[in-house]
Amino acid sequence: MERVRLGVLGMGRQGQIHSKNIAYRIPEAELVCVSDVTQERAQQVGIDGVETYDDYRRLIDRGDLDGVVIATSTDTHEEVIKAASEAGLHMFCEKPIATSLAAIDDVLETVRKAGVKFMVGFNRRFDPTFKHVWELVQNGTVGNPMIVNITSRDPQPPHLEYLKVCGGIFFDTTVHDFDMARYLSGKEIYEVYAAGSVLVDKRIGELGDLDTTMVSLKFEGGTLGSINNSRQTGYSYDQRVEVFGSNACAFGNNETPTRVEYTNPKGTHSDVPLYFNIERYPEAFYGEIQAFADCIKNDTPAPVTGEDGRKAVVLSMAARKSYEENRPVKITEIG
Amino acid sequence: MERVRLGVLGMGRQGQIHSKNIAYRIPEAELVCVSDVTQERAQQVGIDGVETYDDYRRLIDRGDLDGVVIATSTDTHEEVIKAASEAGLHMFCEKPIATSLAAIDDVLETVRKAGVKFMVGFNRRFDPTFKHVWELVQNGTVGNPMIVNITSRDPQPPHLEYLKVCGGIFFDTTVHDFDMARYLSGKEIYEVYAAGSVLVDKRIGELGDLDTTMVSLKFEGGTLGSINNSRQTGYSYDQRVEVFGSNACAFGNNETPTRVEYTNPKGTHSDVPLYFNIERYPEAFYGEIQAFADCIKNDTPAPVTGEDGRKAVVLSMAARKSYEENRPVKITEIG
Amino acid sequence: MERVRLGVLGMGRQGQIHSKNIAYRIPEAELVCVSDVTQERAQQVGIDGVETYDDYRRLIDRGDLDGVVIATSTDTHEEVIKAASEAGLHMFCEKPIATSLAAIDDVLETVRKAGVKFMVGFNRRFDPTFKHVWELVQNGTVGNPMIVNITSRDPQPPHLEYLKVCGGIFFDTTVHDFDMARYLSGKEIYEVYAAGSVLVDKRIGELGDLDTTMVSLKFEGGTLGSINNSRQTGYSYDQRVEVFGSNACAFGNNETPTRVEYTNPKGTHSDVPLYFNIERYPEAFYGEIQAFADCIKNDTPAPVTGEDGRKAVVLSMAARKSYEENRPVKITEIG
Amino acid sequence: MERVRLGVLGMGRQGQIHSKNIAYRIPEAELVCVSDVTQERAQQVGIDGVETYDDYRRLIDRGDLDGVVIATSTDTHEEVIKAASEAGLHMFCEKPIATSLAAIDDVLETVRKAGVKFMVGFNRRFDPTFKHVWELVQNGTVGNPMIVNITSRDPQPPHLEYLKVCGGIFFDTTVHDFDMARYLSGKEIYEVYAAGSVLVDKRIGELGDLDTTMVSLKFEGGTLGSINNSRQTGYSYDQRVEVFGSNACAFGNNETPTRVEYTNPKGTHSDVPLYFNIERYPEAFYGEIQAFADCIKNDTPAPVTGEDGRKAVVLSMAARKSYEENRPVKITEIG
Repeated sequence: MERVRLGVLGMGRQGQIHSKNIAYRIPEAELVCVSDVTQERAQQVGIDGVETYDDYRRLIDRGDLDGVVIATSTDTHEEVIKAASEAGLHMFCEKPIATSLAAIDDVLETVRKAGVKFMVGFNRRFDPTFKHVWELVQNGTVGNPMIVNITSRDPQPPHLEYLKVCGGIFFDTTVHDFDMARYLSGKEIYEVYAAGSVLVDKRIGELGDLDTTMVSLKFEGGTLGSINNSRQTGYSYDQRVEVFGSNACAFGNNETPTRVEYTNPKGTHSDVPLYFNIERYPEAFYGEIQAFADCIKNDTPAPVTGEDGRKAVVLSMAARKSYEENRPVKITEIG
Repeated sequence: MERVRLGVLGMGRQGQIHSKNIAYRIPEAELVCVSDVTQERAQQVGIDGVETYDDYRRLIDRGDLDGVVIATSTDTHEEVIKAASEAGLHMFCEKPIATSLAAIDDVLETVRKAGVKFMVGFNRRFDPTFKHVWELVQNGTVGNPMIVNITSRDPQPPHLEYLKVCGGIFFDTTVHDFDMARYLSGKEIYEVYAAGSVLVDKRIGELGDLDTTMVSLKFEGGTLGSINNSRQTGYSYDQRVEVFGSNACAFGNNETPTRVEYTNPKGTHSDVPLYFNIERYPEAFYGEIQAFADCIKNDTPAPVTGEDGRKAVVLSMAARKSYEENRPVKITEIG
Repeated sequence: MERVRLGVLGMGRQGQIHSKNIAYRIPEAELVCVSDVTQERAQQVGIDGVETYDDYRRLIDRGDLDGVVIATSTDTHEEVIKAASEAGLHMFCEKPIATSLAAIDDVLETVRKAGVKFMVGFNRRFDPTFKHVWELVQNGTVGNPMIVNITSRDPQPPHLEYLKVCGGIFFDTTVHDFDMARYLSGKEIYEVYAAGSVLVDKRIGELGDLDTTMVSLKFEGGTLGSINNSRQTGYSYDQRVEVFGSNACAFGNNETPTRVEYTNPKGTHSDVPLYFNIERYPEAFYGEIQAFADCIKNDTPAPVTGEDGRKAVVLSMAARKSYEENRPVKITEIG
Repeated sequence: MERVRLGVLGMGRQGQIHSKNIAYRIPEAELVCVSDVTQERAQQVGIDGVETYDDYRRLIDRGDLDGVVIATSTDTHEEVIKAASEAGLHMFCEKPIATSLAAIDDVLETVRKAGVKFMVGFNRRFDPTFKHVWELVQNGTVGNPMIVNITSRDPQPPHLEYLKVCGGIFFDTTVHDFDMARYLSGKEIYEVYAAGSVLVDKRIGELGDLDTTMVSLKFEGGTLGSINNSRQTGYSYDQRVEVFGSNACAFGNNETPTRVEYTNPKGTHSDVPLYFNIERYPEAFYGEIQAFADCIKNDTPAPVTGEDGRKAVVLSMAARKSYEENRPVKITEIG
């Protein structure tokens, strides 16, 4: 295979990031085409020589692609995945795969039958800092993980309109941290206990959602964990992990724009962490698409599977149930 | 009052630390006498001009003291506190006050009736780092505390003999962190959920105890928290706190012996944190006795009350019950 | 002006970096063409739609460019700059402009007469960390700079072949730091005193060069400074600055690949700094070309002038003379 | 020898610190007596069982001491050292030994003839951080020291009255750093070049002194170094060292009162370093007297010798001469 030929579906913010990474930073891949229901948006991507479609089906029907990146809205995923499966295209799909477990199981079965690669966009696994923590676990530096603590807080809440449709904080935010907990520890979570509050904005509570949460985790083998989330730090994106193991305790800390600090009579001062996901995770967005291209080119398994995507959703469902019933919930209760 | 005249009961490690701090570092106080059931141990304190007793009652009966520091074994506390109360002596008492809630309530009632000051030895409140975090909460820098995370891990487990009598990890270790959580947040905890494992040493499990725990906390007003404990880091004492509030997130990090770091081809390296409580908390041990002397001298309330001591025990009991029944437990269930 | 039309001359490592930044990361600019004496190398740049030349004159003669980036070998600069000046092209020129002061003065005069913009490639001014230190000086946070300390050390020496032609450590390495010292302080250096040793590799000494140097600086207004250089850290690129002022002391520290640290019984360990200039300064390489495009587009002065390029060379000459004569040398002695 | 019997001469700030350390923190030593020309000041030391004198000769004549700590004013050192030598007493002497090289040579000869131990109070060698940097050099972690950089800045200038008699910044401040440079590198300095300015307070310049200096160092074997001093940081004591060697670069950084940091929208903030020498060096003051007692008790050589004291003065003289003549000065020019 010369270069991996890819198309990107959905030219929202994420689709544009993927398109540019494929076009400019991944020599092994080629951005052949993009699609968006609004053709103007597809054309805005502005990369020379890239064909644009307003109907994703025509893109899929070209017949000369190796794979597609699915960055359309979640409610279209099921349909798109099935169409791409039929066309025998490998897929990179933004999370969540779908909103119901039945739908997820259905598309995963479709994908399995089609025998194509299917990778889910848990980009944080490709953040250099978190990846290095993972390596320290994998290479034995950390030893057996005993406690995993994850902090994941947004600089400010999304718009209320978004909050209404995002499925709630466990599905919109904690879902990433569940995946991170599994990824870093190399272990499965079998039970969660979730506590939650509305401390940032009363309107979030009025939507039946939470803005501050603490989830307690039990992993196979006795490892314990916690995930704390907040919709608002006021400062910036606070994304840190800690894996305490039998040999060492590893920390993945926040990135800052610069390495400047200054000391004056009030103290020593340094930068606030990078503002939000666009600023914090550019290398992760690049790394995940690079990994997708690599697994096609080298015919290796996708590094983040549909099963990974499913498990994070199941854990989010368990967290929600735990919060609602104020009791620990076993994952087997969900499915 | 010229200088506060104090006696110290119990010349174990802690009693000796208190004796030296009173004798050498607190000009407003005077170490008049010490006692220990083994008079030799009392004499070993080796401070010029300090009288020694093998019977604490004779010390209490001197009639010329302002207060006593009770550092005898926990099973003697009830008796000693009652005797000191009768003698009208102010008291500084190592934690726990007693092992049963009934006994604690009994002595607190005695103390109240005697009208003497009663301070409990939660030394960590006087650690300069944790105290400064507390100040940042108190002065509004942190804003409303939304999440409180406490890490508290020992370098290595105590001897099995000690483990057999210490009451279990929640009473021996987490009890300090419950107090810290209340202290830092300025809020009461009303419910806990405790998870625990045996990952360090199977023999700890055979004693019916745990060596790795994660406690989820709910505070009045919606603040959430977590406490994670381990009996063994391998490196040293790992004692950190984080208060995430509406205005800022404050961190109390570990102390190290020096501020040296060096960079070589393997990375940048700095000291391991201070080894254990003796190394980490000398200023806290000094500060609490200074505070005790101050509250006698200035006739101000004890900065850590008997009620504080009681609440930490109640929270430990709730954590144990939560672990045993694998469900969140309200503090009101305990008493 | 729609987009700034640029050509890049010289497809060595630096020319390729500039080409990619123009093509992919600067929407306001367009990479129209590149040249290299070896046309194959020019073609290797591999950016769609970019014309390639093996003779830079044909590139300059196109007549449809706004500016050129000169990344050819230093000995061609004089000729190229004159040709571009005649063609009325704005120029970004890698440092050094030329190797003799006479040649530099000659081309700067040519450029002045042509009335085109001329920017010199002191990329480090565009490093986000150093730029932020500069901002802290500019916005008054630092106050009046009193002491400026610059550390600039390479991971390992270049090949001996390169060392033979690079002009010596003061011209090859310290020249960047002289510019940094002027940039950060906002002040001119009027006298230097240079000490030097051969501690890394005897062969460097046999070439008449040094591998370890310490230059003491005097700035107008009484500010003092130091620059220390080494050809070999063993670990990686060590590039740090400190500006101690009347209001604060600002530090620009090293960047590391990740923000991971781990604590084990041997200490707390974090990443070694980024390896060398390619790893450390990608944003600086991008930033300087962005700034070049901006100054053409907005018709603003070049942010690093030919005069800046000349001054750094003069300071390097003074340092060499100071070392050879072991005495402080005034800049006015050089020219 | 049971306990080392010591007397302290001079009950100024430093004498009191030494007295308390001997009395309270060094079990191997005993504080027998103290003297001060003002007997009241001697009595203020307030340690039970310590005899006080207003005439140091009577203290020396007791005949039952092992050694004395000389913390009287510099102009009395010569006389006191001779008297103590005659009495066969070991001596710990605050720096400087004397103000003229002739006087220093004279007393060092006297001491040598008396065959007593003579230790000079370069306390910073006993600071845990700097000592650890020294260890990293000694144990080979750093390798061959190639560059030594020392930052040493006071929070604010002393009173003008003190400035008039202190001998100038090189003798009052840099003298400590010269000793540190020799100590850390394990090498002798053979040439210095000093630059200086008046940037903090014009009145310091009117006294013929400097408040901001940069000294360039050449060590035997080719190691290079720099010392930068300032009389005023505004924030606090800024005391840092760096030893860049063939294997690693070691840093001794500032100590802070706590390990708290907090992040808010303006950045991440931590404590200002400890305020001044009393706050920064308590362990160093303790460590040096402990070392003095140890060398008497174990009959081992004094860890900081009279020769060390002399060399630091010679380097200060060379720095002054270098500044005055604006040229590098060899140590052999001084004596």
